Amino acid sequence: MKISPRTNKRRLGVERMESTQTPLSKSRTSKSGPSIIDCDIHASIPHDGLKAYLPRIYREQIETWGKRLPGQNQMYMNGGTNGSMQEHQPTRGGNDEDAYLNYMRANHIDKFNLAYGILTGSDYGVHTTPDTDYAAALCSASNDYVIERYLSRDSRLKGSVHIPKQDPILSAKEIDRVGSHPDMVQVIVSNGAERPYGNRRYEPIYEACVRNNLPFAIHVSMEGIGINHPPTGAGYVSYYAEYRAARTQIMMAHLASFIFEGVFVKYPDLKVIMVEAGMLWIAPYIWRLDQDWKALRHQTPWVKEPPSEYYRKHVKVTSQPLELPPQKELFMPMLEAISARDNLMFASDYPHWDFDSPLLAFPKIDEDIKRRIFYQNAADLYNLSSVKLAEGGVQA
Amino acid sequence: MKISPRTNKRRLGVERMESTQTPLSKSRTSKSGPSIIDCDIHASIPHDGLKAYLPRIYREQIETWGKRLPGQNQMYMNGGTNGSMQEHQPTRGGNDEDAYLNYMRANHIDKFNLAYGILTGSDYGVHTTPDTDYAAALCSASNDYVIERYLSRDSRLKGSVHIPKQDPILSAKEIDRVGSHPDMVQVIVSNGAERPYGNRRYEPIYEACVRNNLPFAIHVSMEGIGINHPPTGAGYVSYYAEYRAARTQIMMAHLASFIFEGVFVKYPDLKVIMVEAGMLWIAPYIWRLDQDWKALRHQTPWVKEPPSEYYRKHVKVTSQPLELPPQKELFMPMLEAISARDNLMFASDYPHWDFDSPLLAFPKIDEDIKRRIFYQNAADLYNLSSVKLAEGGVQA
Repeated sequence: MKISPRTNKRRLGVERMESTQTPLSKSRTSKSGPSIIDCDIHASIPHDGLKAYLPRIYREQIETWGKRLPGQNQMYMNGGTNGSMQEHQPTRGGNDEDAYLNYMRANHIDKFNLAYGILTGSDYGVHTTPDTDYAAALCSASNDYVIERYLSRDSRLKGSVHIPKQDPILSAKEIDRVGSHPDMVQVIVSNGAERPYGNRRYEPIYEACVRNNLPFAIHVSMEGIGINHPPTGAGYVSYYAEYRAARTQIMMAHLASFIFEGVFVKYPDLKVIMVEAGMLWIAPYIWRLDQDWKALRHQTPWVKEPPSEYYRKHVKVTSQPLELPPQKELFMPMLEAISARDNLMFASDYPHWDFDSPLLAFPKIDEDIKRRIFYQNAADLYNLSSVKLAEGGVQA
Repeated sequence: MKISPRTNKRRLGVERMESTQTPLSKSRTSKSGPSIIDCDIHASIPHDGLKAYLPRIYREQIETWGKRLPGQNQMYMNGGTNGSMQEHQPTRGGNDEDAYLNYMRANHIDKFNLAYGILTGSDYGVHTTPDTDYAAALCSASNDYVIERYLSRDSRLKGSVHIPKQDPILSAKEIDRVGSHPDMVQVIVSNGAERPYGNRRYEPIYEACVRNNLPFAIHVSMEGIGINHPPTGAGYVSYYAEYRAARTQIMMAHLASFIFEGVFVKYPDLKVIMVEAGMLWIAPYIWRLDQDWKALRHQTPWVKEPPSEYYRKHVKVTSQPLELPPQKELFMPMLEAISARDNLMFASDYPHWDFDSPLLAFPKIDEDIKRRIFYQNAADLYNLSSVKLAEGGVQA
């Protein structure tokens, strides 16, 4: 593994935070639960808050034309009001800049005594507009807002670099601009796409990820919206339930694309995270890819190992929405088939309607694998050092 | 279940054939194998042979412009030369009209002592052209050719009605024209599509299927070719291995579409067959669909039962290319999870490169379930009466 300048920066940053900041949590539930890293938390960015971080030209355009971003809600329903849990009722408006942060701390971070929470974004609509410079400005504003208004206020929160993936060169610039911030732990894009993500057009992004020692996360969203392809290989679906199924199909396409385009051969340090696309489908999918690779590998000779090996070494998966087979005895064998011990990371998707509670979503599993899924796999991937928990005790 | 005029016609047809025709087989291998129905055999239709069944205007157009059908081979490779097994070397050209039929009998039907073989088509390119009347003429010619040159020559062969699915009304007319032939046992389309097959635009096709008591089969092919959508929800893939994976993703989209559009509620007698798209993916897919349906069923209230129930009652799956988990102990539980005992039907895909031998492809499984997969499920679906085997013994 290459040593990048980032490794040092990250380590310094983490040490600094640990010495000057301690988690604020006063847990109600930690006694019964393991130490938890939540890999998918959505923190709100208010419309006016974001605008303050935009250049004047875009502030004026927004005043004249509105936000101009095609969104999912214009095409498909979601679950819950605005996609959120019913009990999610943060204070809206007012002058308290930290109102949402404090609400989220009380109702999620502290409540479940999270060691860390990875913020994955509030609006992926930036990826649906044909106005690429505008998308780039929105990504920069969003990144600056998150650093200043969330990451700098709570050392447990870590951020994701949003990029205008319409333009991989501009994306690489944005990764280089904010990716070295010690609290930025990954680059993130939405799942809806113009081409599968293994395509060579995206290479500047992966070069920048490796240069900044950041994994590349794909979060389901915006499939078939705006400039993206229709959400299935058979065109548009009619209903949200189908749409949710289609998202996984697109994630499958991205995974095959990374493998068969040889991205992991070109960038042996690159890690990819599949967020919110389910997990059990991965088992029969890599079985099939391995079979086809064996028969057809002469057509893609740069793919040196079975697809399942690239998955195992380079790809992580988040758990929410957690799938459970009706045949309960199949759950553990399926977890083993997807290498959950090394590749699965817990995510809650707070505050969305299909939120998975860190305490309730999983059936009972062995403490060893549970600890890896709920903490260690993410700690290793994101290079999060051990933290002193509020309740005492050191996580290695 | 409605009684359609077809049921009588079919029964009469089968009886007539049984009394006047006996299978020609002289098996080399049947002693060791069960009675077999092969649900996916591709029989060649020579270019000149098809032309003879076309109206003059299209014969002249072909002479001037060639066949004008976008095809997969112009976009992606396949396995083997022309997609076939290396040992597949039928005589080409010459004056022997039955040369291919005789070759196929010797090398597949007789060799494996098939009770029946379902012919699924030689070219799905008809579904990729924007010239819909031309597609309709090609489908009619193909159907007439198959009836005259295959079905009438061997009572073990059964045919599939090809339709110009670009125009569901014309498609229904073609189903009504040839669907009542006693040896036509299903309607078939390719998997590549302009919209998922549950979409209401296709309803005239399903009405005609039910009217003629024919199941509707979807065979992987032509994804992303010609007028069809790109093969994934993220656009075009680069390589054939990805393309094969994408086919399954599209089949997933069709399955969700049938369920959530309520096609099986509108047409309770309709059966759908998913051909050559794999099978083990169905397990986690229906687990996930069931979970989402439970949470979101208020959005599609016409979907009365869990998706897995519609799958179980209305959908059949063919086995080739057979997937085997590397964890051998998972194979039977996965077969159970996809209701293989009732829903899986053997297919060889003869003569294509990834042919599954009726004798070698499957691992050892219980005789009871084996008999259902290799014979009974297809016999029930296609209403194929019991046949006297060449070696004696009556299959119930």
